[in-house]
Amino acid sequence: MSERFNRITPEILAELREAVGAGNVVAEDADALESYASDEAGIMYTSMPEAVVKVESTEHVSAVMRIATRHCVPVTPRGAGSGLAGAAVPLRGGIVLSMERMNRILEIDPVNRVAVVEPGVVTNDLCKAAAARGFLYAGYPMSTETSFIAGNVATNAGGGRVIRYGSTRRHILGLEVVLPSGSVLDLGGRIRKETWGYSLMHLVIGSEGTLGVVTRVTVNLEPLPGRTINLLAAFAELDSAVAAVAKVVRAGLPVVSCELLDRVSADMAASHANAPLPCQDSTDAYLLVQLEGDSEERLDDDCERAGTLCLDNGATEVFVAESRTESAAVWGLRQNITEAMRARDPYCSLSGDIVVPLSAVPEMVGEIRRAASERGIVVAILGHVADGNLHPTVFKPEGMTPEEWTDCAEAYYDDLTAAALRLGGAGSGEHGVGYVKMPIFLRSKSPEELEIMRGIKRAFDPMGILNPGKMPGEGPVL
Amino acid sequence: MSERFNRITPEILAELREAVGAGNVVAEDADALESYASDEAGIMYTSMPEAVVKVESTEHVSAVMRIATRHCVPVTPRGAGSGLAGAAVPLRGGIVLSMERMNRILEIDPVNRVAVVEPGVVTNDLCKAAAARGFLYAGYPMSTETSFIAGNVATNAGGGRVIRYGSTRRHILGLEVVLPSGSVLDLGGRIRKETWGYSLMHLVIGSEGTLGVVTRVTVNLEPLPGRTINLLAAFAELDSAVAAVAKVVRAGLPVVSCELLDRVSADMAASHANAPLPCQDSTDAYLLVQLEGDSEERLDDDCERAGTLCLDNGATEVFVAESRTESAAVWGLRQNITEAMRARDPYCSLSGDIVVPLSAVPEMVGEIRRAASERGIVVAILGHVADGNLHPTVFKPEGMTPEEWTDCAEAYYDDLTAAALRLGGAGSGEHGVGYVKMPIFLRSKSPEELEIMRGIKRAFDPMGILNPGKMPGEGPVL
Repeated sequence: MSERFNRITPEILAELREAVGAGNVVAEDADALESYASDEAGIMYTSMPEAVVKVESTEHVSAVMRIATRHCVPVTPRGAGSGLAGAAVPLRGGIVLSMERMNRILEIDPVNRVAVVEPGVVTNDLCKAAAARGFLYAGYPMSTETSFIAGNVATNAGGGRVIRYGSTRRHILGLEVVLPSGSVLDLGGRIRKETWGYSLMHLVIGSEGTLGVVTRVTVNLEPLPGRTINLLAAFAELDSAVAAVAKVVRAGLPVVSCELLDRVSADMAASHANAPLPCQDSTDAYLLVQLEGDSEERLDDDCERAGTLCLDNGATEVFVAESRTESAAVWGLRQNITEAMRARDPYCSLSGDIVVPLSAVPEMVGEIRRAASERGIVVAILGHVADGNLHPTVFKPEGMTPEEWTDCAEAYYDDLTAAALRLGGAGSGEHGVGYVKMPIFLRSKSPEELEIMRGIKRAFDPMGILNPGKMPGEGPVL
Repeated sequence: MSERFNRITPEILAELREAVGAGNVVAEDADALESYASDEAGIMYTSMPEAVVKVESTEHVSAVMRIATRHCVPVTPRGAGSGLAGAAVPLRGGIVLSMERMNRILEIDPVNRVAVVEPGVVTNDLCKAAAARGFLYAGYPMSTETSFIAGNVATNAGGGRVIRYGSTRRHILGLEVVLPSGSVLDLGGRIRKETWGYSLMHLVIGSEGTLGVVTRVTVNLEPLPGRTINLLAAFAELDSAVAAVAKVVRAGLPVVSCELLDRVSADMAASHANAPLPCQDSTDAYLLVQLEGDSEERLDDDCERAGTLCLDNGATEVFVAESRTESAAVWGLRQNITEAMRARDPYCSLSGDIVVPLSAVPEMVGEIRRAASERGIVVAILGHVADGNLHPTVFKPEGMTPEEWTDCAEAYYDDLTAAALRLGGAGSGEHGVGYVKMPIFLRSKSPEELEIMRGIKRAFDPMGILNPGKMPGEGPVL
């Protein structure tokens, strides 16, 4: 608890209850508070809130922010808690502002091809509602079944369709944002181009709840693709799989996804699901490639070409999963992989999220393996390989204490981040900086760039009450 | 000349010549300076620079910025001068920093599907270089033959392909930016997803040269489409043409462009080119629709469907221009329309650039006509109608003085901007705020939003020397 913030007193609690209703305020119940003390970054990254406020409207958010500002109490916005970098951990205590009750899809607008939703809508619920009206919401984080749309905005979430559709940023047309002062900004809207002052909307996207609280999101909808096909290509060598990716990307095929699963990842995923993958014993890496198109015939041709390309570049077998059931099975393995890894080792470190240019992926994969082998730790290599975005995941060796392990894993990721930056990449492709990556983030940026970010923080949040301890490092001080 | 800036002394000129070479500095030659005193916003918006510095490298830009900072001299970055809002007009005198000699295409990188270019590359030169390697640079402002790529970045330029490919923002992956201090920021890169601190890159995009000087641009390249077809649909009524747009957009066709030309625009364009459009006498508005696709057969079907849709919704005739020559002719009319209008009336006001949701376009068109008719002025209505982005252009009545006319045109656009905002739109879709729209921009934003923008400006440019007098209004004061 930082000295510059005030603790939540019974008087402040009474104000909060008055503002949002007593049923929306959790305090004094350690068990209830504890589930808001961490996110999917893991049990190593925990900090208890003093109160959780479950808002139901923009007015609620404004009222809470006014109270917090008046009393100088920190506020940490929280979506589904599915983040992998600890951005939702209330580092300085105070209020966790939970969006879980703002979960309505307000409108699907077919003329303007947008959906307008509250921040707590689960990504997949938005996808389903859009699909029911003939539209695709093209954001597709692997946490689609749990993550909230405003969480996607907060981290500029990526996921499995970026190669074709871009990150969350590309799908966002409008945001309603509550400032720490309680004022409401209405940014963007149902329009497709705008150049009318600095883009505060694009600044808020990816700001991990440090500049304002997103209370409404207007997203772009795409036409639903006619048909998708999934290929699973098995490679006897990880390096061949990695080398084949650039060729698949270059071939002009309608590739929507291209996921890498190395042997360690594939074994864990398959054994957790109790569903072996084809050729598993002789396979060192899989590429899961999704294609889509409107023309049946053309997509068949494309599928054939993609398969041949893989076989010509080291794949031992290519399997085509076209039925919904087959496709769901193979994507289910991919989506549930963090759960599988957690089940194997509750201390496994899921924060690896480096991104590099596609041309540098082979070298980056080499670094990932070398740095793990130097430390004698097991690494699973998976990720959105065609985006250059990899999720190396490491597992605690037996006999290492949790504290030793946290240090070891962080040092490992520091090395990988340094390598990614050297290769022209960045420290995070989609998970964000959060809490876990703050030290390496601060080291990776120049003092002048950090100073600009702090100036931006100050412009939005002069008292620094919003998600303190996170980006951009030392916040403003009263 | 504001009192808070210093004038350029002979000593400062000597420093500039020392830094970038005497041949790159223009001063004391009024004729030479005058061509840097305005942009395409028109002769009503002019302010003389004291010196023009033609930089050749990032090091030059850093050196100039350090000199300007040391002496507190304003610097206005300038691309091709093709802007329509006066953003490149050096309102407070000082230095115009011209990027015209930084015009090299540094690299086309086929593996990472990017091009890396200097800021002064003409948009169309980039398009041609990309096409020669089998790629599409998808930015397509109507000024593609003249505008510089960094000018596109400065205004988040839109143009004729936004409905399919998005504004310039979507194509930008990396920027090198020189700060007023002379330091260089390296933002983004050859990567396709990133969430590693506040996105300074997206903040610089659309900031109209007020936050930093763009010295290198990394753009995304798309696959070249196999084939394009252009349809010209003639409508006897403007309202029918406007109403047909939403139907064309909804039909799931591969629409790349959908441009509106009303009778006034069409007459001027055709008579300037001395090339009449088909059915011109009986036509009140044209829609120019471009489709693209890889499959010949499918594109023929799509073209047929688009034509039928237009005919079913009020078109009297639909013409298909498929050959390069025919397509170039009809797009040439569209591209050269501002030239045609200028030729007709050098005082015509080209700054109209409002954007509204597609559903509100019919109402907006009504407002555009009503407000012109109330003032007794002639308006040409054209624009990227499927984006909701219209360019109403008005012409000086005979007998009105230039001063009266400027007031009249500005009041007209103020009314339109107010209407656009009421309809959920914005004051500019692609031209930017510049100099021309500052008054209405400042009135359209809340004091709190402006204060945030000023905080951002301060974070980048604490002395306020970069393009002073532009966004976000009163800049920082020493």
